[in-house]
Amino acid sequence: MVERITLYSAKICPWAHRTELALKESGLDYKRFEIDLENKPEWYAPKVNPASKVPALAYGGPDTEPDSPSPDSVKLAESYVLIEFIADLVSSTKPLLPSSPVDRAKARFFVEAFTSKFTGVWFGIVQRGDDPAGILPAIDTLQDLLPAEGYAVGEWSIADAAVTPFLGRASAVLKNDLGAYDQGKGAKLWETLQNDEKYERFRKYFADVTKRESFKETFFEDVIVEGYKKRFAPLRAQRSAAAS
Amino acid sequence: MVERITLYSAKICPWAHRTELALKESGLDYKRFEIDLENKPEWYAPKVNPASKVPALAYGGPDTEPDSPSPDSVKLAESYVLIEFIADLVSSTKPLLPSSPVDRAKARFFVEAFTSKFTGVWFGIVQRGDDPAGILPAIDTLQDLLPAEGYAVGEWSIADAAVTPFLGRASAVLKNDLGAYDQGKGAKLWETLQNDEKYERFRKYFADVTKRESFKETFFEDVIVEGYKKRFAPLRAQRSAAAS
Ligand SMILES: N[C@@H](CCC(=O)N[C@@H](CS)C(=O)NCC(=O)O)C(=O)O
Ligand SMILES: N[C@@H](CCC(=O)N[C@@H](CS)C(=O)NCC(=O)O)C(=O)O
Repeated sequence: MVERITLYSAKICPWAHRTELALKESGLDYKRFEIDLENKPEWYAPKVNPASKVPALAYGGPDTEPDSPSPDSVKLAESYVLIEFIADLVSSTKPLLPSSPVDRAKARFFVEAFTSKFTGVWFGIVQRGDDPAGILPAIDTLQDLLPAEGYAVGEWSIADAAVTPFLGRASAVLKNDLGAYDQGKGAKLWETLQNDEKYERFRKYFADVTKRESFKETFFEDVIVEGYKKRFAPLRAQRSAAAS
Repeated sequence: MVERITLYSAKICPWAHRTELALKESGLDYKRFEIDLENKPEWYAPKVNPASKVPALAYGGPDTEPDSPSPDSVKLAESYVLIEFIADLVSSTKPLLPSSPVDRAKARFFVEAFTSKFTGVWFGIVQRGDDPAGILPAIDTLQDLLPAEGYAVGEWSIADAAVTPFLGRASAVLKNDLGAYDQGKGAKLWETLQNDEKYERFRKYFADVTKRESFKETFFEDVIVEGYKKRFAPLRAQRSAAAS
């Protein structure tokens, strides 16, 4: 029997978003609590996640308000651990991973390959002003690993949950040309991804994952755009002042 | 039915060692092929692992020699993906992960928490000469997460497979004081880990995981010591020449 779930999340955070997608698709009931990352509640680290990060999940225990977590629930953290956990909870009712060991391995490899390539460059792009084209190897990897059509490994799975938050953020951020990189480079890259024949498979996949209800209900583009503007516009201004 | 398995590995490599431990403990039959990382066979990247890393695994297909891999086997890579794969293969006959979703999440969290802390500092220690005491936060995390006795989550599991290779290498390397750091610092840290009351839980765990047959059959201390000597002794010499 599945027990009570409380998710601690933040709209801005791609790792947390993975967990929200998996929970929505699982059909499980859960409470959601938004953590303000710039002003974290003082009970969060001691009572929920000692690493003081989102996402985290409280499982089981009595029915308390999210801001008074009970010591009797199990506290779990790390987005990848959480989405595997959610898949394990519903494995017999609503499979979120294939049952064949080979397909499960392909799903996990897909996550690892894309995530390490994408997150390895993304921070440098938005924060230090590296060329946004640095994400293209991650996009190429995605295209190489995707089957001719559909999701990462057949039905929608936690492999799709793991990569979609980064694609959603890349879209919002590049389209709006946000980040420390030279003005115009983000919007131009997004243009290329929208029009170049080479990225057709990427576009189809992006459309498939973002048209799902689970995505629409958990993706807050305005929050992301505002957050990135606030955080990274000053860095671009500094860079261009330093260059002139 | 479990199909034919060929493991491509290297004795020096901790990531590959994870996979060897899981395979030994699984009881599955497999062929093992040593990849010389300093002189990789030219067929390895195109026919087995495009990333050209160990570990990799060929699954299924006809019975070929490991150095003539068949296009009809599935090729899988990434150590964490592989140990989950091995656990999935034997889930009903020889569980290498607990069945409860919460315990599975704890096992996966244990791997992530220790690995990110340990590997985040290890390279800087042996390569750049950072203080070997930098591994203590990883050891503290291990101790915090371990139950009062036994393995990471009950029976021996792939969580233990994932961390043991790093502990084995830390032991061999520190005991022998190998790495770019100041002479004496490694041996002294290992002394502390052997004697300080604070590390009792670590010592017991280390003894438990390293006394298993699976470890004895897959840990080649002499190869590791020689490999680290060859690679890192010149870096220490450079550092102390630069300092004098
Ligand atoms: N490896 C973690 C990363 C989570 C993470 O870095 N979350 C960020 C927000 S995106 C966070 O909570 N940072 C702490 C802070 O901002 O104080 C996971 O996969 O869950
Ligand atoms: N993330 C990979 C790391 C594997 C890895 O880095 N392997 C190293 C040896 S320890 C390797 O094969 N490097 C390629 C080379 O040495 O050319 C995994 O977990 O399997």
